[in-house]
Amino acid sequence: MVTGGRICPFCPGQEIRTPPEVLAYRSEGGPNEPGWSLRVVPNKFPALRVEGDLDKQGEGLYDRMNGVGAHEVIIETPDHMASLSELPDKQVADLFFASRDRINDLRKDSRLRYIIVFKNHGTAAGATLEHTHSQLIALPVVPQHAQAELDGSLRYYQFRERCIYCDILQQEMQTHDRIVMETDHFLVIAPYASRFPFETWIVPRQHGAHFSQVEAPVIQNLGWVTRTVLRKIDKALEQPPYNAIVHTAPIQDGPLEHYHWHVEIIPKLTKVAGFEWGTGFFINPTPPEEAARFLREVGLP
Amino acid sequence: MVTGGRICPFCPGQEIRTPPEVLAYRSEGGPNEPGWSLRVVPNKFPALRVEGDLDKQGEGLYDRMNGVGAHEVIIETPDHMASLSELPDKQVADLFFASRDRINDLRKDSRLRYIIVFKNHGTAAGATLEHTHSQLIALPVVPQHAQAELDGSLRYYQFRERCIYCDILQQEMQTHDRIVMETDHFLVIAPYASRFPFETWIVPRQHGAHFSQVEAPVIQNLGWVTRTVLRKIDKALEQPPYNAIVHTAPIQDGPLEHYHWHVEIIPKLTKVAGFEWGTGFFINPTPPEEAARFLREVGLP
Repeated sequence: MVTGGRICPFCPGQEIRTPPEVLAYRSEGGPNEPGWSLRVVPNKFPALRVEGDLDKQGEGLYDRMNGVGAHEVIIETPDHMASLSELPDKQVADLFFASRDRINDLRKDSRLRYIIVFKNHGTAAGATLEHTHSQLIALPVVPQHAQAELDGSLRYYQFRERCIYCDILQQEMQTHDRIVMETDHFLVIAPYASRFPFETWIVPRQHGAHFSQVEAPVIQNLGWVTRTVLRKIDKALEQPPYNAIVHTAPIQDGPLEHYHWHVEIIPKLTKVAGFEWGTGFFINPTPPEEAARFLREVGLP
Repeated sequence: MVTGGRICPFCPGQEIRTPPEVLAYRSEGGPNEPGWSLRVVPNKFPALRVEGDLDKQGEGLYDRMNGVGAHEVIIETPDHMASLSELPDKQVADLFFASRDRINDLRKDSRLRYIIVFKNHGTAAGATLEHTHSQLIALPVVPQHAQAELDGSLRYYQFRERCIYCDILQQEMQTHDRIVMETDHFLVIAPYASRFPFETWIVPRQHGAHFSQVEAPVIQNLGWVTRTVLRKIDKALEQPPYNAIVHTAPIQDGPLEHYHWHVEIIPKLTKVAGFEWGTGFFINPTPPEEAARFLREVGLP
């Protein structure tokens, strides 16, 4: 596919335009040849690189270290024109299967501490290439937002000896006000006091800290659930840009009683400005109860 | 001024279109009449309201309270077409004088804990009205970003018995790599490992936790410094949208040895996307050393 005079490096036949693939699901062809349905390649312009040492050092009162890590791109389909929500369920599930496979491979590298899988959909949400894709970044430290979530969950666990996410699931099932949809494996909610309009969380019913340890039937269901939520958001909000992020435990940790992996979807409808940067607080004009009711009632063909 | 068929409520002669002013600097006319050079009014669509009780209560495992606080707009000039960087020094200083005056008035209300003064310039930075203005929001809690900054500064102070900002000033004056400009009262720096391209901090040389206790000569100088920095940014980056935020201590606190008020300016050049939301880390393509050199060398007429 050629857009604006530029050849898309994620299209079949253009495999040579990306670094060699680290994973692909294919029915025909050899590595880095067409025939794939999903392909994972190192980012050509990576935020972090696998080579080298962390080399932590001081610079007066400042600290620095090298950007050791991995930055990979998950090309979700050979079809240049499709968006994730338009793909078949199996294809969306394959995105999660590929993410899980890559995490389980990268976690063998003991320098790496945390892996974030995320998707930027649409220019306003930070996507720089049109061809639909997700990204995976493996970091040599646990990033501060993940650590804050882990710390908060741990404090709750120390107080109540229960997982806060399990408690949230239970409370939401009692009130039903913020539930978007339910399956055997997942509850989809507009979280209480959500930061953003139509912020939506996909939370597994079964407790588990690590996305990478989820079993195949759950991932298959996650594909269907994610696609259905995205289609509802597309229909309700006229295909908005969005960010989707897998929240999971640090890769070198064992099972954690206090943390519960989940997926957060944030449609990009408001601007983050001075107040939000200065405070970390968010002004959300759409209460989650309204967003959930709206998404619940969106009918899909 | 009429833009797109809408009358600007911040223009002289339209005073009736805003709630009654709480402060104005004027050479003629009475309250809510033309003749002002700067005017502070309650926001017509406030994020928080002064009336009522906090009324903190639980909702199962969630916590809620009423949005008690204040949300004010500082109209920086009667001139609809001017931007802050185009105003005379005195006018920019007046913005800071008015902010200081309003903080010192609002802090008498013991329900309020923190006041943030900020500016969103340009649509991409969240400005919703064209006529140049800043905002002030008084909150009944210390917001989490402010608390994180206070906590981090306190940990450093407990370790070294020195203010971290004072130490930063000292180190920056030794290396000079990240200094944009200097005056008797301020050092302007591109901070080490800055989150955003051309992120710029205006830091007072004299230690003080509270912006609201700064004396007139320092505020006058702050007006000149801010205007000069904004003009440099305007020239270097072709008038980018930006957010500017006054970072200061919680209003009910006494003098703090460990905290140091300052102003942060963030040009809006990159998009905050999935990686940033998921991690709290930022990928900055422009090292602060380059940004500082670039801004240092920008000549102004």
